[in-house]
Amino acid sequence: MRNTEFRVIGMTCGHCEMSVREEISELPGVQVLEVDAASGRLVVGGDQVDEAQVLAAVEEAGYTAEPVR
Amino acid sequence: MRNTEFRVIGMTCGHCEMSVREEISELPGVQVLEVDAASGRLVVGGDQVDEAQVLAAVEEAGYTAEPVR
Repeated sequence: MRNTEFRVIGMTCGHCEMSVREEISELPGVQVLEVDAASGRLVVGGDQVDEAQVLAAVEEAGYTAEPVR
Repeated sequence: MRNTEFRVIGMTCGHCEMSVREEISELPGVQVLEVDAASGRLVVGGDQVDEAQVLAAVEEAGYTAEPVR
């Protein structure tokens, strides 16, 4: 399983982390390994992670994300 | 209906406001008229508001409150 890292802007608390976690957990084959409001760090695992889908899920939760290269 | 104002410490976002709103809405005869994360302002309405119950509800949501005299 590969890890893919994103930076999320706008999360302020544990509720926000939970919202992001919930939206991403709806994506098949993608696990949330880490999501942290303070750092904005989001790490997902999966062998076929579709970055665009992850970005869309974060947006659905109400935040903005970008891949960390 | 009388208004009673409280100051809530620790709310950061709309999710936090919603948590406070939900806990307080479980108190009989108490309506949330205003809850704002940015200012910490919480105003409830009701003719027989029990301050201690409101403080306990806010604590249940994960925050700290004090009455504004």
